[in-house]
Amino acid sequence: MDLTLTEDQQLVQSTAREFLAGRAGADGSELWKEIVDLGWTGLALPEDSGGVGSDFLDVCLLAEELGRAGVATPFTPTVAAALAIAEFGTPQQKQDVLPAIVEGRTIALARGHWGAEGSDLTATPAGDGYTVDGRALFVPFAGEAAELLVIAGTVVALVDVSTPGITRERLDVVGNEPMYSVTFDGVSVAAQRVLADGVDAVTAYATVLTCAEMVGGAQAVLDMTVDYATQRRQFDKPIGTFQAVQHHCANMAIDVLGSRFATYEAAWKLDTGQDAGTEINTAKAFVSDAYERVCALGHQVHGAIGFTAEHELHRYLRHATAAALNHGDADFHLDQLATRLGL
Amino acid sequence: MDLTLTEDQQLVQSTAREFLAGRAGADGSELWKEIVDLGWTGLALPEDSGGVGSDFLDVCLLAEELGRAGVATPFTPTVAAALAIAEFGTPQQKQDVLPAIVEGRTIALARGHWGAEGSDLTATPAGDGYTVDGRALFVPFAGEAAELLVIAGTVVALVDVSTPGITRERLDVVGNEPMYSVTFDGVSVAAQRVLADGVDAVTAYATVLTCAEMVGGAQAVLDMTVDYATQRRQFDKPIGTFQAVQHHCANMAIDVLGSRFATYEAAWKLDTGQDAGTEINTAKAFVSDAYERVCALGHQVHGAIGFTAEHELHRYLRHATAAALNHGDADFHLDQLATRLGL
Amino acid sequence: MDLTLTEDQQLVQSTAREFLAGRAGADGSELWKEIVDLGWTGLALPEDSGGVGSDFLDVCLLAEELGRAGVATPFTPTVAAALAIAEFGTPQQKQDVLPAIVEGRTIALARGHWGAEGSDLTATPAGDGYTVDGRALFVPFAGEAAELLVIAGTVVALVDVSTPGITRERLDVVGNEPMYSVTFDGVSVAAQRVLADGVDAVTAYATVLTCAEMVGGAQAVLDMTVDYATQRRQFDKPIGTFQAVQHHCANMAIDVLGSRFATYEAAWKLDTGQDAGTEINTAKAFVSDAYERVCALGHQVHGAIGFTAEHELHRYLRHATAAALNHGDADFHLDQLATRLGL
Amino acid sequence: MDLTLTEDQQLVQSTAREFLAGRAGADGSELWKEIVDLGWTGLALPEDSGGVGSDFLDVCLLAEELGRAGVATPFTPTVAAALAIAEFGTPQQKQDVLPAIVEGRTIALARGHWGAEGSDLTATPAGDGYTVDGRALFVPFAGEAAELLVIAGTVVALVDVSTPGITRERLDVVGNEPMYSVTFDGVSVAAQRVLADGVDAVTAYATVLTCAEMVGGAQAVLDMTVDYATQRRQFDKPIGTFQAVQHHCANMAIDVLGSRFATYEAAWKLDTGQDAGTEINTAKAFVSDAYERVCALGHQVHGAIGFTAEHELHRYLRHATAAALNHGDADFHLDQLATRLGL
Repeated sequence: MDLTLTEDQQLVQSTAREFLAGRAGADGSELWKEIVDLGWTGLALPEDSGGVGSDFLDVCLLAEELGRAGVATPFTPTVAAALAIAEFGTPQQKQDVLPAIVEGRTIALARGHWGAEGSDLTATPAGDGYTVDGRALFVPFAGEAAELLVIAGTVVALVDVSTPGITRERLDVVGNEPMYSVTFDGVSVAAQRVLADGVDAVTAYATVLTCAEMVGGAQAVLDMTVDYATQRRQFDKPIGTFQAVQHHCANMAIDVLGSRFATYEAAWKLDTGQDAGTEINTAKAFVSDAYERVCALGHQVHGAIGFTAEHELHRYLRHATAAALNHGDADFHLDQLATRLGL
Repeated sequence: MDLTLTEDQQLVQSTAREFLAGRAGADGSELWKEIVDLGWTGLALPEDSGGVGSDFLDVCLLAEELGRAGVATPFTPTVAAALAIAEFGTPQQKQDVLPAIVEGRTIALARGHWGAEGSDLTATPAGDGYTVDGRALFVPFAGEAAELLVIAGTVVALVDVSTPGITRERLDVVGNEPMYSVTFDGVSVAAQRVLADGVDAVTAYATVLTCAEMVGGAQAVLDMTVDYATQRRQFDKPIGTFQAVQHHCANMAIDVLGSRFATYEAAWKLDTGQDAGTEINTAKAFVSDAYERVCALGHQVHGAIGFTAEHELHRYLRHATAAALNHGDADFHLDQLATRLGL
Repeated sequence: MDLTLTEDQQLVQSTAREFLAGRAGADGSELWKEIVDLGWTGLALPEDSGGVGSDFLDVCLLAEELGRAGVATPFTPTVAAALAIAEFGTPQQKQDVLPAIVEGRTIALARGHWGAEGSDLTATPAGDGYTVDGRALFVPFAGEAAELLVIAGTVVALVDVSTPGITRERLDVVGNEPMYSVTFDGVSVAAQRVLADGVDAVTAYATVLTCAEMVGGAQAVLDMTVDYATQRRQFDKPIGTFQAVQHHCANMAIDVLGSRFATYEAAWKLDTGQDAGTEINTAKAFVSDAYERVCALGHQVHGAIGFTAEHELHRYLRHATAAALNHGDADFHLDQLATRLGL
Repeated sequence: MDLTLTEDQQLVQSTAREFLAGRAGADGSELWKEIVDLGWTGLALPEDSGGVGSDFLDVCLLAEELGRAGVATPFTPTVAAALAIAEFGTPQQKQDVLPAIVEGRTIALARGHWGAEGSDLTATPAGDGYTVDGRALFVPFAGEAAELLVIAGTVVALVDVSTPGITRERLDVVGNEPMYSVTFDGVSVAAQRVLADGVDAVTAYATVLTCAEMVGGAQAVLDMTVDYATQRRQFDKPIGTFQAVQHHCANMAIDVLGSRFATYEAAWKLDTGQDAGTEINTAKAFVSDAYERVCALGHQVHGAIGFTAEHELHRYLRHATAAALNHGDADFHLDQLATRLGL
């Protein structure tokens, strides 16, 4: 058992932190270009695809720093798709897509029958390939993406966003990520664009990366709250000298550390090819709740000042509430955990 | 012990509910005019001041309906000020202010040394009256009000907003109510505008009215969530048939009913002239947390659809988070309760 | 709306409190005799049955004081049965049973198909009456009772404990009340011992009385904890001067007061013949959880001293955990509440 | 990062589990003898002291299995003392004590000024050594131990229990461990029995071992609850098919896994000589609450059957409530965490 970062991992982390400092609210496409230039999208991809061949854990460290910095990028869906393609794609698919991702191509995940969201994608066999119909609601970055990784039942396929029959409609949502409804009307998918498998893989990678982003966000809220508690004075002493405020902050710290343990354990199991199902369900259910608790306590310590519109607490609260639903809410993961327990 | 509404109270409630239906987001000044025409601002004021002489409980029923409808008005500060003036004002003060309030004059509460908000008003004796200096942060409706009820230490005084030395600056906050920072720079207050007393009274009335608004808001969230659970289908049946969703809704209902009990018990004690301190602390601490729990569960049942920008859940979540801080957050009231327990 | 006690109710309360002071752990049968002599079992029964004709609320005040004193008696099942008989019994049944209850006869409630407990009583028509078979698990005071009120499906009947075919086996349970498994092997019940109705009534009365006992127990835990916090010193000052301990006690006080509101609202609705279903479900679910929270915080404030075997905290924790299950646990009442919400 | 068990660790775990199966409630001294014969007390001690030289993590695995089996032994205080002596003892002290511990000598920890428990040990310099006075309350296994590790302020010393001036009084507590009040009346401690240091070390080892025991206990409660949910039928199907029961069990599983992460992270930091303070505070605060939540949900799923006196749930609930206080309750560790956060 060994949970500290290696020197390389520390370098990944500190470089990312430095690069992202003060970038909250940065222009998305410009930031994405810089991220690509830094090589982040290829970090865990094989070297023969133009990647660096690092571990998935290193990618999680980047996701954590993105969450900490409060920036919204297509990093998670793009990398989750890339890792699934690297694992289950044909040589041709890998050659077509992976180097392009290393160079900055973005991918969004369009999924059917996911949770309560009204997605109802179907893939009907047609010739060697499939015809995809239906609608995927709440697809982050679908409008910005060059390609969609479509998941309909057990079918996973790459689809260019310009394929006839695809309509992407921007939704007006509360949240930091651009969100789309994507409609498929008789969209043809050729056999050579269908992956051998990958539903579970893309789900696992995307869920754990989302958890890592949340860990980073929760850490940022803890940091700004402790900082505020030491500076803000009331009755002639810092509010951080009141035991109630101290315990609020300590409880936040416990939730942040617990979230980090759960997330990196799941990441490590994934990385080493073990069955990570229990750890992923545990991480998503725990971290989703913990991040919301951290934001609530952060707001309580900040008091009314936290409600001024420009306060960055809002960005994190929006992130927490949206990310809690991404890739399954608490009820969804509790259901899965119960099944794993034999119930 | 008797907690049902009288016929008169039922009439107040149903009339208000009908009037406010569909008014969420209505233009504030137009709505206020209609509210005044309906006689709400004078409902609990003495008849010789132009009021109706009803109970404070009736006013709470109106506040609950305002919260339920999701509208933001200066009702709570105006009525809390009016009731304190009716109780502690001189005959001249009553004559000057109460009939005007019945006719629609609005009053904002500018308070010093309240919680962690940086307010630091001081009232220094000057001649027969006082000079008020300092700043009151987070004063709802200060920009719209005609008068301020200034609370600085034990001094309570009426101050016209046009008095030299007063600056009102709109704050950009997340929340439904317009919020202001009000600065006092050597503001002269004549003796005849100072109330005999009233700090506790105005605090008590404003706190309980705020609780009543929150009860109404929580009820609205419960109603829309149950409604959604019966209509939204997943796996070919309404999501309200899942036991997890049923229990979420049942837990929301318990919080709403518990909040209503706590609030009306405090209101009733106030109405009958009993010491309501314990009940007010209990109500504010319990209802603040309960409303936030209700919103969180409402979001969980709604899933991603609750994050579309036009969804009215947001209005209530903003209300819950802002109202939780108004007139003291949970820590503030826990401190007071502990004192009442002898600790 | 009016929740204060009348003078008569205050007298009931203070007399009971004085009588019960220091009786925790008293010999059960001696205590029961005194309770009967005080007229408690007949308090809410009609005068023509030898009772006093008081309200159900007064009986709840007695149950609260019994819970507060930490004594275990057959008061709740006996009075719940008596009230149901007074409401749904034939004149002959009333005459047979009610004066006897006023004189001290005790009744236990043997119920089938209740929760997860393995009870499976059936009542099969036989002649004019029924044959009862099966087993009722966890029947408090069945061994001490003179009669059983048997509830099997929609059948409610009085059965003498000496009727052939009845076996009562004492269970070794953690809890303050003597608990029995009662087996029915072809037990004949004559038509004249069957009530016209009463399943809902006896359930409602017993549930609310159980809530009242829990309110009393929670109040006792709060009182002893505040007392300990003011006396016990650490680092040369009372532990009650630490904000964390103050907030623990304040949170306990909120739970106690909220429990009292919920319980007495349900009692009052029952008393006035209104549909009290929502209030009863709310009370049982809320109070069960609140009492356990109060005991947990009480233990935290007391620290290790609370674990000495003779400490009276244990009595209340046992009461809280057992009473949380009596007449349906939280899941049971959440299910019922969801049904009332239309889910 | 790597959290799976090595083959050696898996062997330690499976051997311990097999050995302890069915030993709950076993005679303590006989069990201790067998544990010693298995070499557990020397597992992490240096080979030149007769130990095996394994990691502290391996010892934690044993503590987890002891907690899982529901047995109470002096393993935690004895091993914590041994590890501190191995780290901070003189060569002579090591030679005197460590081989004896390997052979079965037991040590209890007598600590002053710990939490709210009334302990007030003082060590006054006297000659080359100290005179110890005062009382240590709630010392587990003090009556069975051959030696005490006395911690008074910054002084850590080994004291034979037969030293004149020492009185050990058995306390009658609710809990599985025998508990004592130990009084010191002018007890002389020679210089050669005083350790160079070790307050923090013995605290850290004992706290983490206690967490490991709690992890094991929580796992046992989860296992028996899932087992019950699959076997117990209600309305003709296993109760484990109800979503509410499934979510209770899944929430228990999350708490167990989160507790294990937190505990082993702290253990691993200790093992590798890093500053483990934050991890220890996090683990003790989190695991204490989590274990109590697990027991509460276990009771809810079991229903009344869980209250039969012989049900093993009680053993674990007693363990959870007692262990939550050992080595600092949640408030204590929140205070320390706040300090580490700079508050």
